[in-house]
Amino acid sequence: MTNPVDPAWIAVDWGTSNLRAWAMGPDGCVLAEASSEDGMGKLTRDGFEPALLRLIGPWLAGRAPVVACGMVGSRQGWCEAPYRTVPCTPLDRAAEVLAPTTDARLRVTIAPGLKQTAPADVMRGEETQIAGALRLMPGYDGVLCLPGTHSKWAHISAGEVVSFQTFMTGEMFALLSEASVLRHGMQGGGWDEAGFEAGVSDALSRPERLGARLFSLRAEGLIAGLSPAAALSRLSGLLIGTELAAAKPYWLGQRVTLVGAERLSAAYARALALQGVEATRLSATDCTLAGLASLSPQIEGVPR
Amino acid sequence: MTNPVDPAWIAVDWGTSNLRAWAMGPDGCVLAEASSEDGMGKLTRDGFEPALLRLIGPWLAGRAPVVACGMVGSRQGWCEAPYRTVPCTPLDRAAEVLAPTTDARLRVTIAPGLKQTAPADVMRGEETQIAGALRLMPGYDGVLCLPGTHSKWAHISAGEVVSFQTFMTGEMFALLSEASVLRHGMQGGGWDEAGFEAGVSDALSRPERLGARLFSLRAEGLIAGLSPAAALSRLSGLLIGTELAAAKPYWLGQRVTLVGAERLSAAYARALALQGVEATRLSATDCTLAGLASLSPQIEGVPR
Repeated sequence: MTNPVDPAWIAVDWGTSNLRAWAMGPDGCVLAEASSEDGMGKLTRDGFEPALLRLIGPWLAGRAPVVACGMVGSRQGWCEAPYRTVPCTPLDRAAEVLAPTTDARLRVTIAPGLKQTAPADVMRGEETQIAGALRLMPGYDGVLCLPGTHSKWAHISAGEVVSFQTFMTGEMFALLSEASVLRHGMQGGGWDEAGFEAGVSDALSRPERLGARLFSLRAEGLIAGLSPAAALSRLSGLLIGTELAAAKPYWLGQRVTLVGAERLSAAYARALALQGVEATRLSATDCTLAGLASLSPQIEGVPR
Repeated sequence: MTNPVDPAWIAVDWGTSNLRAWAMGPDGCVLAEASSEDGMGKLTRDGFEPALLRLIGPWLAGRAPVVACGMVGSRQGWCEAPYRTVPCTPLDRAAEVLAPTTDARLRVTIAPGLKQTAPADVMRGEETQIAGALRLMPGYDGVLCLPGTHSKWAHISAGEVVSFQTFMTGEMFALLSEASVLRHGMQGGGWDEAGFEAGVSDALSRPERLGARLFSLRAEGLIAGLSPAAALSRLSGLLIGTELAAAKPYWLGQRVTLVGAERLSAAYARALALQGVEATRLSATDCTLAGLASLSPQIEGVPR
């Protein structure tokens, strides 16, 4: 028989599609982790507490407090944690919101996202990764790029998010490769580095032609034998290259750190390297946990 | 009791999503029309003949020949009508393909599409609209723009398609407005002309920033009260403007004719007018019927 998990606190990353939780020890180590597909997008307001209890119920004997970030704090989430406005620090303990709960073992606080007034932009969840990245790289000044469904680029100075910009690159890739006419020529495709690099260069040199280049992937598959791997990889390169073209003020001549999932970050790193930018890479999960730890009541008074 | 429809020939436009048919009189007038959702994308090879009979069975007493265009002639269609290669005339009677049929009343010919070797591109169905447009505007030299799911721009000279280019604008609009995160801020949206025009101008002046502007539609909805109509119309303007930016060699200083559905053509005409280009507009259905008529055996020997 194994000992029950008895965490000091519980970290929760609750996005639109997924719910992830980590049982954290007092020294910042992960005792256990769990995840489910009970994302914010699938739940009504009274579905959040049961979904969380299903996942972390076994960890609650010691009434460990829960610290959450992500879409769980949106207007359609468990309870709204109003956006803070940049320029500001990525997280602020005073702005956390206490979620309404009925189970006496639960105490759940939710971190607010960030908004930018002009140009209008918002983030929820990435602010926690940014806070974590700044704990992992104290004194960092430069740019953070967080690739994902909605990639974010953020200017960081003196511990604050000065400005940021969102690109729908990941969502466009999913829609185009899985739901558009292009899917026919991409099924079963692996990875083709040369195709990816060609797409990146192509998009960076003539970014305004993206719309024209997309259908070429289909046409080359039909009449020129383009392989699924080459088509999929070139699509990825075209979309990331187009993002880099628009985000140039963020990375040109700047110190850049990537915070993201392993494979996606590697692709961005390669695309940036082609432009002469050597980016540092941090794990998105490490940054999320470091960010949530900075809000964890259990380590108050402990040097961070 | 009404008289049965007894056409001289039957025109068929068979795309990926829909099947449309017209019973044509000997003088080119439409006696009856019918449509179904039996598009090529939903049928296996042996499903085409039954789908066609369901739609036009009542018109076949006189064994009228059927002339078809569109995706029905693709490799995944009823039977492949191999692409012809530009530069060439849009249609060529000698390249029609006879579909295999079992019902003795049926004689179905399929018009081939066009391909371009470099840059790789293909069309199926639009070549028939182009042929029809050239019958409606004899001696036309200039550019045809065919807005749609996959918009086509074609250079026309001396009765031939010299070159063409496809943009996925319509499909991107459908995916982004119905399947992406942007859909949340667009539901129930009507039309906002100022929002459309702002999107067009914005995209034409900085086309490389499309990826960044898309998420702004969501963010402005969340934090600045952007209405669904304004968001939807600006999305349309951004995508059409981005297409115009990449297609500039096609329309700048050229004679331009739009061939498309009423509302979509009107949007393209407005976007072009903002750039100082006054485009002629033709109905896509009129052009399809005029193009198929040029292949109809019934009017051989009749001056066209």
